[in-house]
Amino acid sequence: MVHSAIHEDTARDGRSDAVADDAVMSMADFHSWFNARARVNSFQVDRIPFADLSGWDFEPDTGNLVHASGRFFSVEGLRVRTDRPWVGEWAQPIIVQPEIGVLGILVKRFDGVPHCLMQAKMEPGNINGLQISPTVQATRSNYMKVHGGAATKYLEYFRPGSRGRVLFDGLQSEQGSWFLHKRNRNIVVETDDDVALDEDFCWLTLDQIRRLLRLDHMVNMDSRTVLACVPPALARPDDRTDGDGSFVEAVHRSLSGRGRSVHDPGHILSWLTEVRARQELVQRRVPLKEIAEDGWRLGHDVIDHRDGKYFDVVAVAVEASNREVTAWTQPLVAPRQSGLLALLVKRIGGTLHALVQARSDAGTLNIAELTATVHCQPGNYADAPAEYRPPYLDYALAAPTGRVRLDVVHSEEGGRFYHAQNRYLVIEVEDGFAPDPDDRFLWTTLSQLMSLLSHSNYLTVELRSLMAGMRSF
Amino acid sequence: MVHSAIHEDTARDGRSDAVADDAVMSMADFHSWFNARARVNSFQVDRIPFADLSGWDFEPDTGNLVHASGRFFSVEGLRVRTDRPWVGEWAQPIIVQPEIGVLGILVKRFDGVPHCLMQAKMEPGNINGLQISPTVQATRSNYMKVHGGAATKYLEYFRPGSRGRVLFDGLQSEQGSWFLHKRNRNIVVETDDDVALDEDFCWLTLDQIRRLLRLDHMVNMDSRTVLACVPPALARPDDRTDGDGSFVEAVHRSLSGRGRSVHDPGHILSWLTEVRARQELVQRRVPLKEIAEDGWRLGHDVIDHRDGKYFDVVAVAVEASNREVTAWTQPLVAPRQSGLLALLVKRIGGTLHALVQARSDAGTLNIAELTATVHCQPGNYADAPAEYRPPYLDYALAAPTGRVRLDVVHSEEGGRFYHAQNRYLVIEVEDGFAPDPDDRFLWTTLSQLMSLLSHSNYLTVELRSLMAGMRSF
Repeated sequence: MVHSAIHEDTARDGRSDAVADDAVMSMADFHSWFNARARVNSFQVDRIPFADLSGWDFEPDTGNLVHASGRFFSVEGLRVRTDRPWVGEWAQPIIVQPEIGVLGILVKRFDGVPHCLMQAKMEPGNINGLQISPTVQATRSNYMKVHGGAATKYLEYFRPGSRGRVLFDGLQSEQGSWFLHKRNRNIVVETDDDVALDEDFCWLTLDQIRRLLRLDHMVNMDSRTVLACVPPALARPDDRTDGDGSFVEAVHRSLSGRGRSVHDPGHILSWLTEVRARQELVQRRVPLKEIAEDGWRLGHDVIDHRDGKYFDVVAVAVEASNREVTAWTQPLVAPRQSGLLALLVKRIGGTLHALVQARSDAGTLNIAELTATVHCQPGNYADAPAEYRPPYLDYALAAPTGRVRLDVVHSEEGGRFYHAQNRYLVIEVEDGFAPDPDDRFLWTTLSQLMSLLSHSNYLTVELRSLMAGMRSF
Repeated sequence: MVHSAIHEDTARDGRSDAVADDAVMSMADFHSWFNARARVNSFQVDRIPFADLSGWDFEPDTGNLVHASGRFFSVEGLRVRTDRPWVGEWAQPIIVQPEIGVLGILVKRFDGVPHCLMQAKMEPGNINGLQISPTVQATRSNYMKVHGGAATKYLEYFRPGSRGRVLFDGLQSEQGSWFLHKRNRNIVVETDDDVALDEDFCWLTLDQIRRLLRLDHMVNMDSRTVLACVPPALARPDDRTDGDGSFVEAVHRSLSGRGRSVHDPGHILSWLTEVRARQELVQRRVPLKEIAEDGWRLGHDVIDHRDGKYFDVVAVAVEASNREVTAWTQPLVAPRQSGLLALLVKRIGGTLHALVQARSDAGTLNIAELTATVHCQPGNYADAPAEYRPPYLDYALAAPTGRVRLDVVHSEEGGRFYHAQNRYLVIEVEDGFAPDPDDRFLWTTLSQLMSLLSHSNYLTVELRSLMAGMRSF
């Protein structure tokens, strides 16, 4: 079910096994536990017609797909105008969810070694059901509810006045292609308390998580975005690769901020400001039924585009054996194909740099965010004129195996997306590659990206997944 | 016409006169030049009925006030839902202007002393017509236009590839009460070129601008927001107050980042993230005509609220004698009364701290931004129950003269607002004041605010005006 594609640095695997001794649970025990949770948390997800949704309806006036309570989220229409040369204006369905949820990881040291409290959690859109989640995934309603109801486990550690130390706390964006202005709070808190361990949870070291991040469909999106925000200093200093010239050493050095960068931080901000000021991105919410004029077919059991591209909106019925989760129905966004996220990296002046792109999506809050060098669903460009194919896409698709440093397939948010998967690639390119890329692209160090991560809406969730991937070296 | 209210540190005035010798133009010559420009740039602004607007019309379907070209801006309706206890839900007219303009100041050293190229510019909404503006105020259309037309003067210095050094470059928000998600690019560029001086422009040192910032209605909003972003290090080190314990020294020390702060930067970000995650702010654009249900009267020559509060939307005809500016008509937002922006400051552990507030306005892009301790139009609270009066408002209104460090009235953007003026106060409070303010307020140093200014949507334009005011000491 899972595979890992790891190239180079076989020496590191020996090291990993060594440090695993510091963990409260061995990797073997983790997998036994995880498989046991998968058996207990069995579930069934079935596609259903929209008419069979319970509590969800198409609003008569607008055709928007909304919940009777006014809560959760809605699927509405969005009309977008940009100044792009190819598909510059369009309309599409979009998920509207103005509330901010909490994605939190609780950290605690055992014998001095930081461990993260992770959860085995089922989401209906996951390809393989159960994945590793953060300690807490809570909606605003959960978060604001001080007493009563089925409280979210461990949420108290993330409330103001908790005794923990906040290691990271910021709002981060989610998929701009499918969400309108969506963000969640990403928070990492360290505690010294004795923490009672629930059966769906386990303590994992950063080294163990590093290994899980190389498995397909294992670490969910909510985990990856929070893990990307964990301060690199939390991981123990790694002196085993010092001076060995390996890719792993280059990643660690670039994350640590040692070494020279091509651009100073002021230049990076100015470059992004220039892109944001030039880029036209006019977003207007419209009734969902209005986008039928734009090629979207509003069917009984699917909303899809007549070109067979982009994504569908579907409905599912979920039944789960887990006693805490009951049966429910909900809409999900189902991409028509896998996405490709490729980060091209190279050592410049001895420091590893990543080639990031400033990208605008339909639902981007802040006009443009930094993302991977290649960020697309390749199938959407099948009929694109050659000059409008995404730069570096063909290079990434044909990259020599010897240059591929990471190649893993992750699921995207299974609570909103149905079988949405992206292939994440890190490719180390040759010295002379793209020395002077076009003005939507810039070479940055990993520590420069970490600095921007402290603030909202700089790195897409897809680039944050790759930053989590960088922590897997 | 102008007055300045400066308390404390009379010694500093002597200092100011001394440094003025470094300037290319004396203050006396500046005022002569400015008065001469005012005579040449005479103009006439008259209120007119909406029907007399040329090129502007109420859209039949929506009632939105739009320009026939689809450019400039529109006045639409906005429906807002928050979880505030008093006036938690409302609808209002709002200015929608999705384009990002450029506000740029060009800096050049003469004999080593940095000078800013400032412009004498008329705006129709200004109380006294002519004010000091940045080198460039350009719309996106101006900015993108590489050739032809009446090019914006000096714009070439702010384009990518210009030979200047970029000292600051970021998107900054504008009035959330009246604009939906509006931002402009604030940019400061230093050049070594010989720059031809146009007759509407002059070179001023930061010291000279510092003095002008203490005059009412002299330095326009666009200047103030960019001046707030000028790196403090650009001003010459000020050793004349070193160790004298004066308020001026405390301001300079706090701006420089020397001295201890109550909170570390991570705590400030976490506190603001908490506010943003808890605060409900649901914004929905609606047809302007729909807000009539909410007390707004759509009249022939004014859109106003039946309670006589908030603001009106009006139309004006402008005629100017200046040969570059012709006659035109346009809508403007006219506040019903002056606003009050009061920043309470105190020395904590020897370092000057400001008590900032996290505030959400109708049109705020990022849920909440930091603003002054008191930020309101006091008249809007005339009928508010005592418990819902803004905290510290009554304190600020009754502050002892001896504690007032700055008291100046500035105009807000005269291109969109008609006679919009705010009183800006800096009040140094006693040691025991608000040691543990409620969770929407936080004590920060001035250098911590400067760090946040590097990124978008942290400080309101009103707080940035006060930060410019802090540079006037």
